[in-house]
Amino acid sequence: MIIDCHGHFTTVPQSHTRWRERQLEAFARGTAAPVYPTVSDDELREAIEAHQLRLLRERGTDLVLFSPRASAMGHHLGDRAVSSAWAAACNDLVKRVCDLYPRAFAGVCQLPQSPGLPIDASLPELRRCVLELGFVGCLLNPDPSGGYWTSPPLTDPSWFPLYEELVALDVPAMVHVSATANPAFHGTGAHYLNADTTAFMQLLQGDLFSRFPTLRLVIPHGGGAVPYHWGRYRGLADMLGTPGAAERLLDNVFFDTCVYHQRGIDLLLDVLPTANLLFASEMVGAVRGIDTRTGHCFDDTKRYLDAADLDDDRRTQVFSGNARRVFPRLEARIGAGQH
Amino acid sequence: MIIDCHGHFTTVPQSHTRWRERQLEAFARGTAAPVYPTVSDDELREAIEAHQLRLLRERGTDLVLFSPRASAMGHHLGDRAVSSAWAAACNDLVKRVCDLYPRAFAGVCQLPQSPGLPIDASLPELRRCVLELGFVGCLLNPDPSGGYWTSPPLTDPSWFPLYEELVALDVPAMVHVSATANPAFHGTGAHYLNADTTAFMQLLQGDLFSRFPTLRLVIPHGGGAVPYHWGRYRGLADMLGTPGAAERLLDNVFFDTCVYHQRGIDLLLDVLPTANLLFASEMVGAVRGIDTRTGHCFDDTKRYLDAADLDDDRRTQVFSGNARRVFPRLEARIGAGQH
Repeated sequence: MIIDCHGHFTTVPQSHTRWRERQLEAFARGTAAPVYPTVSDDELREAIEAHQLRLLRERGTDLVLFSPRASAMGHHLGDRAVSSAWAAACNDLVKRVCDLYPRAFAGVCQLPQSPGLPIDASLPELRRCVLELGFVGCLLNPDPSGGYWTSPPLTDPSWFPLYEELVALDVPAMVHVSATANPAFHGTGAHYLNADTTAFMQLLQGDLFSRFPTLRLVIPHGGGAVPYHWGRYRGLADMLGTPGAAERLLDNVFFDTCVYHQRGIDLLLDVLPTANLLFASEMVGAVRGIDTRTGHCFDDTKRYLDAADLDDDRRTQVFSGNARRVFPRLEARIGAGQH
Repeated sequence: MIIDCHGHFTTVPQSHTRWRERQLEAFARGTAAPVYPTVSDDELREAIEAHQLRLLRERGTDLVLFSPRASAMGHHLGDRAVSSAWAAACNDLVKRVCDLYPRAFAGVCQLPQSPGLPIDASLPELRRCVLELGFVGCLLNPDPSGGYWTSPPLTDPSWFPLYEELVALDVPAMVHVSATANPAFHGTGAHYLNADTTAFMQLLQGDLFSRFPTLRLVIPHGGGAVPYHWGRYRGLADMLGTPGAAERLLDNVFFDTCVYHQRGIDLLLDVLPTANLLFASEMVGAVRGIDTRTGHCFDDTKRYLDAADLDDDRRTQVFSGNARRVFPRLEARIGAGQH
């Protein structure tokens, strides 16, 4: 069984995206948002079957942990009410895809964050998605300001209410920023990777998991710069007076395999324990083209893993075992005979 | 011959650091800065011989491109006059070390940047350092705001006066941020690597080198996340409508080898052309401890290169040839019989 832990609904029907535009226009004008449009099942099937479902079948993936388009979360836009309505609309659309293709998609939700807004405001939507919609995880944006990094580190107590809820619900969070409003940063080429690196270092500086020993965080995009600089992090742990802290984080911190060339995947597999790596492609996502060197899509990360030097046990861990452990609510879906 | 292209004067005499503190206190009070203290040659010898020079000899390095402590540049502190006086004091101290040990150190200068200040204000100090003090390069801070990223990308025309001067002087710039004032970012564990990644992506989005074909930029810390995610950058170049642009950047963009474990160095050597890699240790720098796995210092990067699968020609390029080409003003020093 092959589980892709990181897929986004990047191919939403146009009416959904247009509603977001109108919602933000209404906010700017100070008027009420328009009524959310009717999106038919056929529109959703069209959006999914030509893209995610086709790729999933072509590449031999069984199940995608499916979340709203991360770059469109746009937590820096609007206010609490705007973010709340937008998160609900995005999560509902993901839920409908999961219901249309229950064997292929499990939901991961967007939180209605806003810069400066206490994270408590995100908890009702998290609970709704997990308890009512059957979602198995959430995206946590460490920088809802969109590239200005005005929030405190993830180890700050202001985030604790979210962690308490994640622990209570037994769901992990993927630490994933949205689009950047800061022109210094390209989104998928800088801000995403920087956020991954930043989040890991915040966790290394803090002591979050002694307080939340069962909390699990997934750092996407192969962990940003972290595996490549693993020696730096091990050394920084020593300098911070916490030798071994980088390795200890691996009890609670996991990395996906969204690294788009063989050499990078090989390093990831060599440097970090197999138990910490979750197969993912980020498709249809950041990099959509074909690598002329290989003749295959950059984001067809399963090919790199297939070509890597992994025995059957390690392969099973990366392709499904670790995802089932980190996202335990998946078991109910899988165990219900959907696979 | 072995040239380390990235060393900082991190072990400055206390009087130098205390003067900086008093300078900033005076700025806060609105009074004049104190007179810069007398620093004796013996103090400098003591600062250098027990640290940089000892390590350099122990590790078998011949020459270090030596710049002021990057984290102390603090461009976000004070104003134009404060940054100007501080840069001059730091550069003068580096010059004295280079004069005391002319075979071992060549100067790389700090620029007197300030957030929002036109880069033109940095040019007199750059010219002084290169033409009067014999320095061979400079540090360019892409984020003088200290972690808030308020400057436009490096491809913005506001930076062009600096590039024109660098081209005219035939010296490269190492793109290197300073300390972060933003609590979201750890300095050496996040901000430094993020800046490397950000700068490369800014260059990939722009077209700087068609305007400045002989400009050379060095991205430190092994290029941040870039080599590990090289497939992502190749794919993003396609998506930006500039296929091959990542590879073309390598005519002008170089990476150092400050990556503190064997596996990372091996990836760097495999992924990027040898001609783009310059040996460096960042010593005495970011990570000062001993790796208990190897029994050697994390930042003894020469050991990783010695252990890497490199033939003599590639080894010579990385250890000296590339540095001599990228920093051509080194030739005058080396050719003058100092080696």
